[in-house]
Amino acid sequence: MTATVTAFSLAEYQERLTKTRAAMTKAGIEVLIVTDPSNMSWLTGYDGWSFYVHQAVVILPEGEPVWWGRPMDGVGARMTSYLSEDSIRSYPDHYVQNFTLHPYQLMAELLREFGQSSARIGVEMDNYYFSAKCLETLRQELPNARFADATALVNWQRAVKSEQELIFMRRAARIVERMHQRVRDVAEIGLPKNHLVAEIFDAGLRGTDEFGGDYAAIVPLTPSGPDSAAAHMTWDDRPLRRGEGTFFEIAGCYRRYHCPLSRTLYIGEPPAEMMHAQEAVLEGLAAGLDVARPGNTCGEVADAFFAVLRKRGVEKNGRTGYAVGISYPPDWGERTMSLRPGDKSVLMPNMTLHFMPGLWTDDWGYEVSETIRIADSGPAECLADVSRELVIKP
Amino acid sequence: MTATVTAFSLAEYQERLTKTRAAMTKAGIEVLIVTDPSNMSWLTGYDGWSFYVHQAVVILPEGEPVWWGRPMDGVGARMTSYLSEDSIRSYPDHYVQNFTLHPYQLMAELLREFGQSSARIGVEMDNYYFSAKCLETLRQELPNARFADATALVNWQRAVKSEQELIFMRRAARIVERMHQRVRDVAEIGLPKNHLVAEIFDAGLRGTDEFGGDYAAIVPLTPSGPDSAAAHMTWDDRPLRRGEGTFFEIAGCYRRYHCPLSRTLYIGEPPAEMMHAQEAVLEGLAAGLDVARPGNTCGEVADAFFAVLRKRGVEKNGRTGYAVGISYPPDWGERTMSLRPGDKSVLMPNMTLHFMPGLWTDDWGYEVSETIRIADSGPAECLADVSRELVIKP
Repeated sequence: MTATVTAFSLAEYQERLTKTRAAMTKAGIEVLIVTDPSNMSWLTGYDGWSFYVHQAVVILPEGEPVWWGRPMDGVGARMTSYLSEDSIRSYPDHYVQNFTLHPYQLMAELLREFGQSSARIGVEMDNYYFSAKCLETLRQELPNARFADATALVNWQRAVKSEQELIFMRRAARIVERMHQRVRDVAEIGLPKNHLVAEIFDAGLRGTDEFGGDYAAIVPLTPSGPDSAAAHMTWDDRPLRRGEGTFFEIAGCYRRYHCPLSRTLYIGEPPAEMMHAQEAVLEGLAAGLDVARPGNTCGEVADAFFAVLRKRGVEKNGRTGYAVGISYPPDWGERTMSLRPGDKSVLMPNMTLHFMPGLWTDDWGYEVSETIRIADSGPAECLADVSRELVIKP
Repeated sequence: MTATVTAFSLAEYQERLTKTRAAMTKAGIEVLIVTDPSNMSWLTGYDGWSFYVHQAVVILPEGEPVWWGRPMDGVGARMTSYLSEDSIRSYPDHYVQNFTLHPYQLMAELLREFGQSSARIGVEMDNYYFSAKCLETLRQELPNARFADATALVNWQRAVKSEQELIFMRRAARIVERMHQRVRDVAEIGLPKNHLVAEIFDAGLRGTDEFGGDYAAIVPLTPSGPDSAAAHMTWDDRPLRRGEGTFFEIAGCYRRYHCPLSRTLYIGEPPAEMMHAQEAVLEGLAAGLDVARPGNTCGEVADAFFAVLRKRGVEKNGRTGYAVGISYPPDWGERTMSLRPGDKSVLMPNMTLHFMPGLWTDDWGYEVSETIRIADSGPAECLADVSRELVIKP
């Protein structure tokens, strides 16, 4: 986030562009409109909380990517991306959230200017930041263009991490270790949940003596007691109580790279079923880590995990993990591979995933997870080092 | 966010539904698919960080709204919404981020089940959480349906706040006052920006002795020095330096209701142009507040503000504010009215807006803003009470 200094070397950005163009060619796409802010940042370095208005990075058949957005954010693009002045374009500010004008009318104009009005154009059709209206507008404005669904085309290129990306993710791991340590240090009966969450943010943002923390793409999910039976509750201001478990689904973040890690804490005597579930989940997690090797598939990791659970009589379905790395709200996942039965994605060295076994019964939830790197050989490496056992407080 | 207790009375939710149905009728819409999480929450009480997967609230011609999403989030819907069991529906978990299946195939099935396969269906076409793929899938699955753009249809119903909503926004105002006080207390040369941001979060989350804070829909925007010339930079871990200004665009949040408030701080001797700009902006802000009365338009407020700036020789364009209230990431605005020249939206008592004069030159940025309530008569009321003057630290 340091102004004028991009997060990665120019060579690395060029390599990313080359990989992306190869994938475009393979998909028969001539021009790619990239709207996922994680992809925009990965391709150009651009960083800023501007994704609440329409913006994009356009990949043409040749030349630099073109950043496109609001004029005031073009200033940020000059500061955070490697792009030259000519590659930073903007639309007038009165197009922002205006019901009679749409920025994609001007995106179409830009594509016409680049001679691409009849191109085969890839768009991220199932991305948060490419609305139905964007596509409708492009279709109307560029009747001769053909549109292809390029959802996750760039995301897939992000799957294998570079050395520099792994440095960032390991820093995020150091940060999330401190966040969980803080929870262990301060959680006690009577502490209002919002105060505990303030402590988690404090640890995550201060980071270490060497580097500071960034905001994670998801806020801490920290439900207690019966609320923890729901997966995505945030927090309230009620105090922690005896006889309740709380899970902490949180991530360390360094320069937009995430290391998510979940742990569960119980105040009082945990119910026998929770301890039984933990035993099964920890054994299943170990089994999954052992299978998470190059050449195996995501589905095989999930199978190994669920097989242990079934053997132990614990019912669980759904997915148990997903790829992670650079991200912006609302999701820290890469939305490509999932650790779930049937996913045939083949694991390769330096892929990174959040292996996320969670159990939600009618009465409580229990989570323990690891962010893993696929090693060159052998079982996956866990990036963070935090005891997996349920934290029990008196 | 307290489980099983909704944020508002059942009567208030019913009134909201009635208003929404009236707007649907006026727009010729029989069925409305609501995907904006702020609208989903406003209509049903539903709260959770689950908007990174497809989910919706469906308003049929009669009966309760129907919540629809992932099974694990249906648990959260039971806890946070007023809806009965029959009105909480879900799609199988393996539809999540699956490239061969799409949840909207099952949304279509749901609409068929409700006998609405030929209805005139309103969708939020320009919303973050209604992707191009959602519309494509619906069109394919429901060839006899007609689709209408219902972007902001519900958002407009939210413009005038109820007494209970104003209580929440005043609580958010108490919180943002504390956030700015904390900045004034701790900012000093050498303090790394990420530590300052940790303090801002701490004040925002701990709130007051009576109530705790929620996460704001935008993280603190806190750029310093030349970075503050860009509007939407977040933070890094460099220390505060003498001879640099920093603006703080932050919001207090209580149960998803926001009170944004921006202020600027300078360490050292502020440049004369910044002091000159401040004088103009403060006079313009006062002029705008005076015009922000029932019966006047948003455009007239902006005109009053820009007229003062022009008189003072300060160049500024773009919008200078927008409606605020309940919100989820990535934007705390309501995306309806804008305080900008030409906006003909008529102000009414208990509308709430973020009046946000910001100035970004090539070298620095300066922001001072107020969250206002349109009074029954007379000038707008500022919800928070924080000195507007540039904070100057030695």
